[in-house]
Amino acid sequence: MVDPRIVEHAKIVVNYSCRVRKGDNVLVLTSSEAIPLVREIAREVGRAGGQLLVLLSEDSISRAYALEADDDALEVLPKPLEQLIAGSDVLINARATSNAKEMSDIPPRKMMLTSRAMGPLQTIIEKKRWNITLHPTPALAQEAGKSFEAFADFVYGATLVDWPGMVKKMQVLADRMAATKDVRIVGKETDITLSIQGRKPIIDGGEKNLPGGEVFTSPVDESANGTVYFDKPIIFAGSEVSGVRVTFKNGRVTDHRAEVGGEFLGALLDTDEGAKRLGELGIGMNRGIREFSKNILFDEKMGDTIHMALGLAFEEAGGRNKSGIHIDMVKGMRDGGVIYFDDEPIYKSGKFVWE
Amino acid sequence: MVDPRIVEHAKIVVNYSCRVRKGDNVLVLTSSEAIPLVREIAREVGRAGGQLLVLLSEDSISRAYALEADDDALEVLPKPLEQLIAGSDVLINARATSNAKEMSDIPPRKMMLTSRAMGPLQTIIEKKRWNITLHPTPALAQEAGKSFEAFADFVYGATLVDWPGMVKKMQVLADRMAATKDVRIVGKETDITLSIQGRKPIIDGGEKNLPGGEVFTSPVDESANGTVYFDKPIIFAGSEVSGVRVTFKNGRVTDHRAEVGGEFLGALLDTDEGAKRLGELGIGMNRGIREFSKNILFDEKMGDTIHMALGLAFEEAGGRNKSGIHIDMVKGMRDGGVIYFDDEPIYKSGKFVWE
Repeated sequence: MVDPRIVEHAKIVVNYSCRVRKGDNVLVLTSSEAIPLVREIAREVGRAGGQLLVLLSEDSISRAYALEADDDALEVLPKPLEQLIAGSDVLINARATSNAKEMSDIPPRKMMLTSRAMGPLQTIIEKKRWNITLHPTPALAQEAGKSFEAFADFVYGATLVDWPGMVKKMQVLADRMAATKDVRIVGKETDITLSIQGRKPIIDGGEKNLPGGEVFTSPVDESANGTVYFDKPIIFAGSEVSGVRVTFKNGRVTDHRAEVGGEFLGALLDTDEGAKRLGELGIGMNRGIREFSKNILFDEKMGDTIHMALGLAFEEAGGRNKSGIHIDMVKGMRDGGVIYFDDEPIYKSGKFVWE
Repeated sequence: MVDPRIVEHAKIVVNYSCRVRKGDNVLVLTSSEAIPLVREIAREVGRAGGQLLVLLSEDSISRAYALEADDDALEVLPKPLEQLIAGSDVLINARATSNAKEMSDIPPRKMMLTSRAMGPLQTIIEKKRWNITLHPTPALAQEAGKSFEAFADFVYGATLVDWPGMVKKMQVLADRMAATKDVRIVGKETDITLSIQGRKPIIDGGEKNLPGGEVFTSPVDESANGTVYFDKPIIFAGSEVSGVRVTFKNGRVTDHRAEVGGEFLGALLDTDEGAKRLGELGIGMNRGIREFSKNILFDEKMGDTIHMALGLAFEEAGGRNKSGIHIDMVKGMRDGGVIYFDDEPIYKSGKFVWE
């Protein structure tokens, strides 16, 4: 018998996150490791009256192709892929891998060309119902430093939750944010203020990301002043950066250090002018996530954390900052962290004031 | 290190069978079991300057979907799939499975609806460069009654051959066929004549099928007279039929029996009027195939065999018979079989007269 959590996972993805209905063309992007989940997704899509196509994105195949293909080929967005995505109503990205480092020996230039070529797909996908989720595998457990059993418990603990209930809780925070001009965050080696005036708070209720569980917006571009210590490590394009300290003046990074990966962080900040400004302030609200897993799909949703991203802002939140990057950095708030909305403390050491 | 035969297999598929060139959009239809082959295909497509997309057709996923989907959904050819195939230049169907019986408990009506819905794709695919090949798996070895090692040897023995050399040999037969009006086949419990006048012999040189290795055409619809005993078993839609004896009068089946599966054969013949007439006469020329494997991709190419198919004829050969089925039945010719072209014996007990 299949793990009943896989069945429930599929039901949430298809029926809650993507609201699949009769006649929908559903495209699942996945790898062979996620077949047990995709099989249950197929069942749910069948029940809902949708059509199903499964596109295989296997790292070892992509790697073999990328190593041999020349720049000319990598720069091209294949037209049939564009049409396939444009013609689909629902896109489900069911992530899984048998080796999280499979792409580690592809020259960065080739990775960059490919991701640039795929860029226009984002605009098409944004107009669809889409969802990114994760199927636990031993390799992903290894990446998170956990046994497979503990990692699967972790994934399902974060994913199989009462989403409408969590949305209700997040709505309270979102309503407060909508009425707020200035946010101040104080904690270990941290005191920063920024403005969210006129920006729209967005609730991530498990629809586009599964797990969801954050309320986020994009700060006013010139508003950030102060210093933040991000105590959680980030993995960006396979490289780790941890113990990051960043100082802002009038929205711009004036100083940055990292305990690990400082040079890489510096290179990222030099990508473009927008890389030196904040594109996001997010507050993690998923208390089903109690541990850090080095996977941003989970880490940024962790309860009792905040995160900020350097780079690209969210248009839907009213954000304006443009950049080729968007690097999320996470900070734990349970031990002494305080969040102020317009000088009023709304969160303190693990509790919102209304809790 | 990967089995070097997989590398050679991929080179033949991409460079010989499909002639992939710069800018081609290559679509691979496959299952997860064939990933080792698809990885090498990806490398070759990359080298050739093509673009690669991999569409996953996993029996266990298709089964889960089909069991739940209602007739309305199964009757639909998904538009994005049609566009994807129409937009591709090259289609490679790399067959493999972890269980050859995975689809065995889907109601036949559902299978029929699906295959009818997919029907129009054939017309689109025919205009492309396309190839069907097979990657050996333990399940396919089991189906063939062989150990995996012996089955892999069998597959590569049939597939990794000197195709231009085999085409040259087949050309001799094809030229003779092109100048022939009547064919007579004599052998164990067999004496049948049919006309191929005005019909075009086609060489299967490993391009569309890999392995290839047959010369075939479609007989004149009313011409078959006599009896044939097909001594090799056939598997049609998962069911076995063997020891088939068929009698034709003026092209139409007047009597049929089978040692196994006689009732099923009768039902197939009742599909439509065209199911009672021959759509194909083929002569197997691939002497790399020395054994029967219950896989028609191989069996119909086996050296020293002939096959006839009831049902749909080949338009490209000038064939006219229409039918919803095309059932290939194979007969060994090594032990006493004789093929006459216009009363002249051109093949006798394992040898063509020009050999």
